[in-house]
Amino acid sequence: MSRPVTLFTGQWADLPLEEVCRLASDWGYDGLELACWGDHFDVQRALTDDTYLPSLRATDERHRGILPDRIWGDGEPEGVRRRAAEEIKDTARAAAALGVDTVVGFTGSSIWHTVAMFPPVPPEMIERGFADFAERWNPILDVFDEVGVRYAHEVHPSEIAYDYWTTQRALEAIGHRPAFGLNFDPSHFVWQDLDPVGFLYDFRDRIYHVDCKESVKQLNGRNGRLGSHLPWGDPRRGWDFVSTGHGNVPWEACFRMLNSIGYEGPISVEWEDAGMDRLVDAPAALALVRELTRIEPPAASFDAAFRQSS
Amino acid sequence: MSRPVTLFTGQWADLPLEEVCRLASDWGYDGLELACWGDHFDVQRALTDDTYLPSLRATDERHRGILPDRIWGDGEPEGVRRRAAEEIKDTARAAAALGVDTVVGFTGSSIWHTVAMFPPVPPEMIERGFADFAERWNPILDVFDEVGVRYAHEVHPSEIAYDYWTTQRALEAIGHRPAFGLNFDPSHFVWQDLDPVGFLYDFRDRIYHVDCKESVKQLNGRNGRLGSHLPWGDPRRGWDFVSTGHGNVPWEACFRMLNSIGYEGPISVEWEDAGMDRLVDAPAALALVRELTRIEPPAASFDAAFRQSS
Amino acid sequence: MSRPVTLFTGQWADLPLEEVCRLASDWGYDGLELACWGDHFDVQRALTDDTYLPSLRATDERHRGILPDRIWGDGEPEGVRRRAAEEIKDTARAAAALGVDTVVGFTGSSIWHTVAMFPPVPPEMIERGFADFAERWNPILDVFDEVGVRYAHEVHPSEIAYDYWTTQRALEAIGHRPAFGLNFDPSHFVWQDLDPVGFLYDFRDRIYHVDCKESVKQLNGRNGRLGSHLPWGDPRRGWDFVSTGHGNVPWEACFRMLNSIGYEGPISVEWEDAGMDRLVDAPAALALVRELTRIEPPAASFDAAFRQSS
Amino acid sequence: MSRPVTLFTGQWADLPLEEVCRLASDWGYDGLELACWGDHFDVQRALTDDTYLPSLRATDERHRGILPDRIWGDGEPEGVRRRAAEEIKDTARAAAALGVDTVVGFTGSSIWHTVAMFPPVPPEMIERGFADFAERWNPILDVFDEVGVRYAHEVHPSEIAYDYWTTQRALEAIGHRPAFGLNFDPSHFVWQDLDPVGFLYDFRDRIYHVDCKESVKQLNGRNGRLGSHLPWGDPRRGWDFVSTGHGNVPWEACFRMLNSIGYEGPISVEWEDAGMDRLVDAPAALALVRELTRIEPPAASFDAAFRQSS
Amino acid sequence: MSRPVTLFTGQWADLPLEEVCRLASDWGYDGLELACWGDHFDVQRALTDDTYLPSLRATDERHRGILPDRIWGDGEPEGVRRRAAEEIKDTARAAAALGVDTVVGFTGSSIWHTVAMFPPVPPEMIERGFADFAERWNPILDVFDEVGVRYAHEVHPSEIAYDYWTTQRALEAIGHRPAFGLNFDPSHFVWQDLDPVGFLYDFRDRIYHVDCKESVKQLNGRNGRLGSHLPWGDPRRGWDFVSTGHGNVPWEACFRMLNSIGYEGPISVEWEDAGMDRLVDAPAALALVRELTRIEPPAASFDAAFRQSS
Amino acid sequence: MSRPVTLFTGQWADLPLEEVCRLASDWGYDGLELACWGDHFDVQRALTDDTYLPSLRATDERHRGILPDRIWGDGEPEGVRRRAAEEIKDTARAAAALGVDTVVGFTGSSIWHTVAMFPPVPPEMIERGFADFAERWNPILDVFDEVGVRYAHEVHPSEIAYDYWTTQRALEAIGHRPAFGLNFDPSHFVWQDLDPVGFLYDFRDRIYHVDCKESVKQLNGRNGRLGSHLPWGDPRRGWDFVSTGHGNVPWEACFRMLNSIGYEGPISVEWEDAGMDRLVDAPAALALVRELTRIEPPAASFDAAFRQSS
Repeated sequence: MSRPVTLFTGQWADLPLEEVCRLASDWGYDGLELACWGDHFDVQRALTDDTYLPSLRATDERHRGILPDRIWGDGEPEGVRRRAAEEIKDTARAAAALGVDTVVGFTGSSIWHTVAMFPPVPPEMIERGFADFAERWNPILDVFDEVGVRYAHEVHPSEIAYDYWTTQRALEAIGHRPAFGLNFDPSHFVWQDLDPVGFLYDFRDRIYHVDCKESVKQLNGRNGRLGSHLPWGDPRRGWDFVSTGHGNVPWEACFRMLNSIGYEGPISVEWEDAGMDRLVDAPAALALVRELTRIEPPAASFDAAFRQSS
Repeated sequence: MSRPVTLFTGQWADLPLEEVCRLASDWGYDGLELACWGDHFDVQRALTDDTYLPSLRATDERHRGILPDRIWGDGEPEGVRRRAAEEIKDTARAAAALGVDTVVGFTGSSIWHTVAMFPPVPPEMIERGFADFAERWNPILDVFDEVGVRYAHEVHPSEIAYDYWTTQRALEAIGHRPAFGLNFDPSHFVWQDLDPVGFLYDFRDRIYHVDCKESVKQLNGRNGRLGSHLPWGDPRRGWDFVSTGHGNVPWEACFRMLNSIGYEGPISVEWEDAGMDRLVDAPAALALVRELTRIEPPAASFDAAFRQSS
Repeated sequence: MSRPVTLFTGQWADLPLEEVCRLASDWGYDGLELACWGDHFDVQRALTDDTYLPSLRATDERHRGILPDRIWGDGEPEGVRRRAAEEIKDTARAAAALGVDTVVGFTGSSIWHTVAMFPPVPPEMIERGFADFAERWNPILDVFDEVGVRYAHEVHPSEIAYDYWTTQRALEAIGHRPAFGLNFDPSHFVWQDLDPVGFLYDFRDRIYHVDCKESVKQLNGRNGRLGSHLPWGDPRRGWDFVSTGHGNVPWEACFRMLNSIGYEGPISVEWEDAGMDRLVDAPAALALVRELTRIEPPAASFDAAFRQSS
Repeated sequence: MSRPVTLFTGQWADLPLEEVCRLASDWGYDGLELACWGDHFDVQRALTDDTYLPSLRATDERHRGILPDRIWGDGEPEGVRRRAAEEIKDTARAAAALGVDTVVGFTGSSIWHTVAMFPPVPPEMIERGFADFAERWNPILDVFDEVGVRYAHEVHPSEIAYDYWTTQRALEAIGHRPAFGLNFDPSHFVWQDLDPVGFLYDFRDRIYHVDCKESVKQLNGRNGRLGSHLPWGDPRRGWDFVSTGHGNVPWEACFRMLNSIGYEGPISVEWEDAGMDRLVDAPAALALVRELTRIEPPAASFDAAFRQSS
Repeated sequence: MSRPVTLFTGQWADLPLEEVCRLASDWGYDGLELACWGDHFDVQRALTDDTYLPSLRATDERHRGILPDRIWGDGEPEGVRRRAAEEIKDTARAAAALGVDTVVGFTGSSIWHTVAMFPPVPPEMIERGFADFAERWNPILDVFDEVGVRYAHEVHPSEIAYDYWTTQRALEAIGHRPAFGLNFDPSHFVWQDLDPVGFLYDFRDRIYHVDCKESVKQLNGRNGRLGSHLPWGDPRRGWDFVSTGHGNVPWEACFRMLNSIGYEGPISVEWEDAGMDRLVDAPAALALVRELTRIEPPAASFDAAFRQSS
Repeated sequence: MSRPVTLFTGQWADLPLEEVCRLASDWGYDGLELACWGDHFDVQRALTDDTYLPSLRATDERHRGILPDRIWGDGEPEGVRRRAAEEIKDTARAAAALGVDTVVGFTGSSIWHTVAMFPPVPPEMIERGFADFAERWNPILDVFDEVGVRYAHEVHPSEIAYDYWTTQRALEAIGHRPAFGLNFDPSHFVWQDLDPVGFLYDFRDRIYHVDCKESVKQLNGRNGRLGSHLPWGDPRRGWDFVSTGHGNVPWEACFRMLNSIGYEGPISVEWEDAGMDRLVDAPAALALVRELTRIEPPAASFDAAFRQSS
């Protein structure tokens, strides 16, 4: 399918947007998936957004690094959350103003920290977590509906929907309202041993955006699933992000399924690989995606020939 | 090995032969494996054939679609079978007239429908099935011997020989007569979990032709081995045909084994992939096969150097 | 769960029912799943049934072996089918009369023989197959509804629903009417590589009966999935039936899932193993099932203790 | 090895200790691993302890459920942490008074919540996490050294050492001081895909206690590694705790390795299985462990016979 | 099948034969497979045997340990080989005198040391190796034929036939003479990744004796296939011998295949496990084998019932 | 990393060095790893070397093929060993004279022939084997130290260090002296099921040279791990050498690990493939290695952008 292939600018936020544009264009990308860091997209200037992490339960210095001062303010968590929610509403408005129909982001989660299940987690605590998600996001999604833009949540550990069943439950929590869909990024499926192809099929009416990001398993009995608090690129990690095509995502099967479910949006390369230089391999990632987009169903089925020919 | 690479025309029967010739030639194929559908090869005009399905136990509307009217006649099964048998004999004669030494086809089977083993299948029923095969085919093979042409049966579910042990028993049923050999098409081995490399070795004196066709397994606990009556290209199938190089056939190991057993015939690309356009990927399939044919043993073994050099 | 464990009498039909009763009772079985062969259950005498194969597309000598003369009649297929349909209706009535709430059986299929997908199968042919199933079974199920009995179809190759997707489509074909449910027999899932545990979860409201039957995979690159027309017990088969507990069914996971979905019906041991004597191992099968039925959830969750204890 | 087999009382804290003693004794256990919940063990009364969770970064209602009021106090996190640290020191003193040489517990972790690695985690944050662990625990371990008791930390997600590399780093952080060793509980290794046998070998001088607890993987492409916020016993979880011998821990290999490294301490059954009744299966777990403890090396090697016999 | 189960006495040669007899009898073994070490069997006294290692290429101190002085003599290799060959002939004669029809042993190999293939091995060297085997063994087998006894070679690394293809070639080297067959001991197949079940089928007319010996793979990326020169029982070995039923031999499939090929000889437990005491587990091994011998085909096939019952 | 890629000349020793230089240069190799066969490198003329096999326990005609006459002499083993040891010392001196800092070779082994562990191997025999290695090599390594050259032993079956644990023990035997390191050639790891990536990490301070050589597993239940005395290229072998990129070595993971451990030496292509012509595929091997060397870490980590951009 001759889909647009875009580059996510999050990993290039240290470069001026102008230079990222030039690089992506030289390499042959069809467009950009703009991040809201650096000078790449300023919601307030354009009447704008932040895609990331409005409702984290506990904010700490890590969030300060990714939030503009006007949202961080004094850092008091609930205040940050409220300011971030407003920012996302503005992002929907800015997107509409720019003619963009989909905003990609994270939801945050007030229950992610309970993932290890010890101390014992009362069922009501989980229920409250999904209710909190609905309470915080329904007003935001109302704005999205108002301006005719869709929100695509990236299924990702640390967020309210991070795997198959949490995605199902999150969609239920907001009554499957169409304003809320998914950004499919299979790199997070690899180490959780989730089947990305089946996921696409089962949530076929909620796939609003696709990120082409890759990861690899490096399990050997010592390296574990949880990363051991080791930095990206450390060979003792049980999994790591790698340049698209260097890992364990079954890309061809994913693209065939995207065809089957009729996805027609962009494919955005999100390039992360601590072991390679982005300038060396971002063009190679594009070439791979172009090759995959050559896979598209023909007008007529191949065994039509048998029937016509008698 | 600089083997000829040909294209099987069955999946192109909706195009005039002339156009298929032009396409294949432009792409660089060395020749064609002619199917007997459409205008590609008319046995009676050239004194000719049909390679497919002479002795199916139960004929129905599916067969009408692939048989010329002169064979279908009134559709009465035994009549169809007799006319088809005569057609195959003529095919041998036509092949000889054209200097072709191998005809590829199916055998049919009077016992295929018992494959699920329920209701219970008496052993004599199976014996009668293989005897029926021998009775129908020995007279045909006599003609092949007469004119010096070989018949290559494609090991394929629905036929008398569809896996390892049925191939062995079918060969026994006709006394291993040399007129009857095999067309190796590993795409049918993939979903039956048969080892195509070992098959080549064990039947090395009966490999008369090779089809380069590919399939892929798509098992996920829901998709089953038997296809669920779903059409080609449906992502819920447990396996599907795909363009050569996109599936689970261990091609390099197969080509190395073809070298080991001294196969010197053509490699015919049989292109089937419901998810791609044949015009897009048939040239790519050729490129892959050319790459594989670069694998051929050297004149001298590599460790000869050690011995010569002291 | 202290579920009743029963023995299916199909494989014991050569013995008088009285003797089978005595054996099963001595071994400790709680009851029998009566087959309709031999003297075990005569529908007409009790105003009765036949559980097997009313609508097979092509009937042949195999069916004669399993049908009483009054149904076989002159063997003309459509006549056999009509008489078998009437017999099943009577079976529902007989079951009701006896206070039995579930009848187990097969549906037959008019499209099973197309499973190999060659010659090419037009989509309408498949559609007609499922429509034919609905047309033949709706009137039968009306009788079941009338008398308050449920029909449990065994998902089984050769029948209309033989795997996950065909089960889904068959249920759709009859509008998911509650009279029609499933007999879960995982032995047929093993060689099709279907996940029996996920199947129980997804069809949890249609699991009406459970057969404890087992099979084993014997794949080695030569032995194939389709059985090679070899008899049960032949070591060259790619899979075979074996006594419960000797094969590849994940029984414990199945029983835990049966608990999770709240199945409360009987567990019926269907004993088939060509390599063992039924008198030797049927008691062992019972012991295994009893062991598995010890797995049942406690009244309170285990980490309740943590919360109570502070 | 005729090792003592004990039962961990954490999952039985709702019963009076006297009753747990009676049950365990009736079943044949050699002793108890006392938890500090309920009336099982009161550190302050015996001059006493709490083994769990002194330094959790964020305390919330979950901790209240497992802490006595005297530690919880007003719930202000740092206050809780300080009181808990004092409690553990007292536990060491109580253990010494009672002649117990090993206390088992958790360490807590100030960096566990960063495990998903987004927002990006600065390396210094991890370094500070291990330093915090050392600062909090060194004074505690000084008391353990003083009274001649060892602390055995259970390697467990949510704690400072939860896998291979974090264990290595935690040991480094406290200079490998002998007062601090490990409680080996392989149930947490199963879903992280860590090799428990290799772990025993590599940390052979720090294995101070063994918990016999079991878990099972239930991955099917939908069920994920992280549990999906689903309660124990939910069949959609990707893994779950099960009664010893019902899961994926390679117990025999573990016991053989315990022999190889000369572990001579108790084997404590920690029984957790949301799908079974503890009264039903705790005796079975004991029987399994007794069977495993029959594996012990002979006085002389088996091939000694060859050498003596000539 | 009610086959005799025997105990191989090699690993018990340090005990007087009388005591081994008493132990085996107490445990319920049906007989002994006598080794020729210690006082268990003295060929010369009974006009006798040695089953092991007549033609090793290089003899060294290891052989001295397993050979009686009259064969070792001055240790000069060729002399040892000649004396050992005479001893084996006498063993055949002694066996005949005792009414024993099968002698089990090793063949030795003059080419085993070339197994690593470096320095490069000229093909003629291998040919000479198999010729040497034939030249040394044909005269010995002449004696076996004379006295009506069969020789069963144990397929074993270090011997002329140690895997599938070397077995085939060794049988060819002596013209498949019936005097020479095989002792099936699958413990050596495990770490070579050979399929013991297929081996039984393919060499079904040469299975003269069966040893029930077990081994386990312990591969973890560090432990290798070749044992690392580590002693039995060292946990760093990549594989090890273990008590029957504790390892990776697919015993049930082996016993079913033994039934299929009609093997009717004894099953001899060869007990080796460096991690357990032989007195503890030899009785357990017997129990396991008895359980396996319960698997024997019934007089009639299970689906006979279907056919009889209509 | 822009590492030099070299070609090992051992497999090209039948060609004059001049021609090999021309070929390698035309293909784009950066240099050669000179073998000491043919005219490629004559230690005595340049005051020189031999890299192979100084201390084999038993020498035979195979060694004559790879040794120059001046070392073979009369072939008496101990004499050959002593002359070979002197040759290696000279090799160090020649390397120093030429400015080469690493010599690659084998060590030999006096205990390799005991690898099958039967007849039983006394532990002292193994100890003596490693002691013998140290005694023979310490004087050689003294010369290496003297002239400032390092020796890189290739971990290889038939040598003293052929897997993980034997490498560890060999390094211990010589006190980990820095003069002795390793030549990493993962082709020998494949069939032993060793993890080459973990090996690089664990022996990261001893990786002195890297050979890019490849092998493939061809296991099917008949083909075994040990090669069956079959020549290279025979399809019945359980594994074989193949051109780089055609086998089972995880090259990308190896190259990423080489980056992680800071290896900066050359990558030498050792080309062996009995099924291909070296002139056809040696350039392809170079292309693959060049592609792999494109993988090198960037100056800054990819998530640096996140932190800079707020």
